[in-house]
Amino acid sequence: MLNYTNLKHRPTDKELVCEFYVEPNRVTMEKACEQVAAESSIGTWTTISTMNPRAAEKLRPTVFSIKGNTVKIAYPQDLFEAGNMPEILSSIAGNIFGMKTVKNLRLNDIIFPKQIVKSFKGPRFGKEGVRKLTKVKERPFCGTIVKPKVGLNPAEHAKVAYEAWAGGLDVVKDDENLSSMTFNKFETRIAKTLDARDKAQTETGEKKIYMPNITAETMKMLDRADYVKSLGGEYIMVDILTCGWAGLQTVRDANLNMFIHAHRAGHAAFTRNPKHGISMKTIGRVARVIGVDQLHIGTAVGKMEGSAEDVISSQKGLEEDMFGIKPVLSVASGGLHPGHTPDLVKILGKDIVAQYGGGCHGHPEGTRAGATAIRQSIEAATKGISLKEYAKSKRELALALKKWG
Amino acid sequence: MLNYTNLKHRPTDKELVCEFYVEPNRVTMEKACEQVAAESSIGTWTTISTMNPRAAEKLRPTVFSIKGNTVKIAYPQDLFEAGNMPEILSSIAGNIFGMKTVKNLRLNDIIFPKQIVKSFKGPRFGKEGVRKLTKVKERPFCGTIVKPKVGLNPAEHAKVAYEAWAGGLDVVKDDENLSSMTFNKFETRIAKTLDARDKAQTETGEKKIYMPNITAETMKMLDRADYVKSLGGEYIMVDILTCGWAGLQTVRDANLNMFIHAHRAGHAAFTRNPKHGISMKTIGRVARVIGVDQLHIGTAVGKMEGSAEDVISSQKGLEEDMFGIKPVLSVASGGLHPGHTPDLVKILGKDIVAQYGGGCHGHPEGTRAGATAIRQSIEAATKGISLKEYAKSKRELALALKKWG
Repeated sequence: MLNYTNLKHRPTDKELVCEFYVEPNRVTMEKACEQVAAESSIGTWTTISTMNPRAAEKLRPTVFSIKGNTVKIAYPQDLFEAGNMPEILSSIAGNIFGMKTVKNLRLNDIIFPKQIVKSFKGPRFGKEGVRKLTKVKERPFCGTIVKPKVGLNPAEHAKVAYEAWAGGLDVVKDDENLSSMTFNKFETRIAKTLDARDKAQTETGEKKIYMPNITAETMKMLDRADYVKSLGGEYIMVDILTCGWAGLQTVRDANLNMFIHAHRAGHAAFTRNPKHGISMKTIGRVARVIGVDQLHIGTAVGKMEGSAEDVISSQKGLEEDMFGIKPVLSVASGGLHPGHTPDLVKILGKDIVAQYGGGCHGHPEGTRAGATAIRQSIEAATKGISLKEYAKSKRELALALKKWG
Repeated sequence: MLNYTNLKHRPTDKELVCEFYVEPNRVTMEKACEQVAAESSIGTWTTISTMNPRAAEKLRPTVFSIKGNTVKIAYPQDLFEAGNMPEILSSIAGNIFGMKTVKNLRLNDIIFPKQIVKSFKGPRFGKEGVRKLTKVKERPFCGTIVKPKVGLNPAEHAKVAYEAWAGGLDVVKDDENLSSMTFNKFETRIAKTLDARDKAQTETGEKKIYMPNITAETMKMLDRADYVKSLGGEYIMVDILTCGWAGLQTVRDANLNMFIHAHRAGHAAFTRNPKHGISMKTIGRVARVIGVDQLHIGTAVGKMEGSAEDVISSQKGLEEDMFGIKPVLSVASGGLHPGHTPDLVKILGKDIVAQYGGGCHGHPEGTRAGATAIRQSIEAATKGISLKEYAKSKRELALALKKWG
């Protein structure tokens, strides 16, 4: 059998580095690490006659760090096809999760080498692109998701969106399970909602963003993106995990010159267990390399699980230097209401989109007042004034705090 | 708040039914079920002003069965876009996995209604198509994966494939992380390996199958499929989970008239935990509806985890009646050697492809003898003769049993 462990090895700039959480199953830690390295690269469970010294020498990965259950493996970049994210993940996030020799295994982070990063397009606009489009400089962006998730017709949808923009929000997005329904056809909804956006822009003098969900089979996504663009939309939204990496990459590679908003529906099936699966930070890395401009990373407050530490770690992965590719704008969404805003901004800073669904439309006076309350909470947090203080002169915020405190 | 529970409800033929494992987190079971139903359809975490009675009445799902932790929910089919698998999964396998009100949540099965099944293409060939192509009627198919997983050049790859076919195997497949590498370009490999296939077919008088891995960004997959077809290949292989559903659907919808072999690399990140994530059976249902012809479902023996019960359940989902769409051929792969064959056939029957990687190339006399030993084990299992008995007159099988017995 080959030997993959060398704790003196230091990764080179031609290696991809994975950080795993490894919990062995009735074998030693060393043995489990060896098998993870083998199965994710060139090895298998038994000695084989077809292995050759060239492959073994040039392509074998190195387990170079084992600290407790945290294991780092460096993979020569030639193990991977440049520009092919599904192939890369089939190696380092493939069969290994099902090996009997590990009880639990989690891919916690990937550091991609320059050659692989540069073989993808990366974000077209990223965080700074959104600032430039909107001319909003000094505060977090605020937005909503049209609710109910599905059920409104296009006219009702557009009206809710208009109220949200008119009330003070920057962003309106479709929900993740809204695409083209019998009662709400994609084309009609997009046309009416972009009209509503234009109206709100004229009335408020502010740039307003609509993020239509184009999630579908790949060719249909491209058609839908073209349609949005033809009506003056700058954004498309993709459920990146239920669509998958091949489809996302195709959408990015089509060079639509549109912002890609990435929704992570389904992630918690494999990100939630801290000992098994794939971390959200890793998903963010992959999405950034392929080239989304914005990504949902959680809230650390609200209806969804996810610790502040995890969310901050994901955000770091979206923003830190990666061979010059653009930082991705973090989106916080899931059970937020205006009362959460100060904590949210404290945790994630100003470079976020804060999305409030029920926390907008559930306002006692409806969507427009809910939007106003949210914007007020954003202003308060930006100015460093407590919500309680700020609400003294802001009726909408006061009502929101009264309902959700 | 809406109420979603009605234990007297019986699902209609216009509803999609999900079976979940639900473990509440500091709420009652009933409350957890209500929230799963809401978040996967039209609801959110608070009362909202924009909900309307029409949406609530026509679209709300029904929790109709709660037995222990097993919960069934019926969703009106109008909640979903026909022909759009990513959208369907963003609803019923989306945000719900991350809700704080569940400690664990697993999607164990989906029963699709006729209208949704018929909105997809389904398998072009399926199980019977493979029998027809090969004219193999009475026994399991046997195959190998070229090993090492990556590292050989195209000529070496083709030679290993030739030896495997010549030794007696029906099927040779690329490994899941082999696509187009610097040292093994896709086009060269496919050309050389299909030549080797032709040679083996001529020499043995048997139909031989090569499954080239086209896994990549969607457009590249379509190009690669066209290339394979242009050289006389009948099969393509896709890593369906790392490519994702949008890309897979695009490949199927392209009407290539080629067999689609589906590899499940990465599944165990979310299928392994029996309490959280998505079951392999569910993945199989989804892949079948979209239209793969063959799918890896595990072995119940060998190097990968997965109980016999789980594997049998996945196979059932691939084969049972589903509004007349074709059954999918089950593929067993992962740490198999000839000694496993009788148990494998006992568990899964004859309608399988049994794939041996290390269990072929690891044979003491090399790939060809390994292939012969496998074929001998298949013959023995088909005839109901014990391996020990059969090996008395079969040298290759005897050597294999001696190594791995």
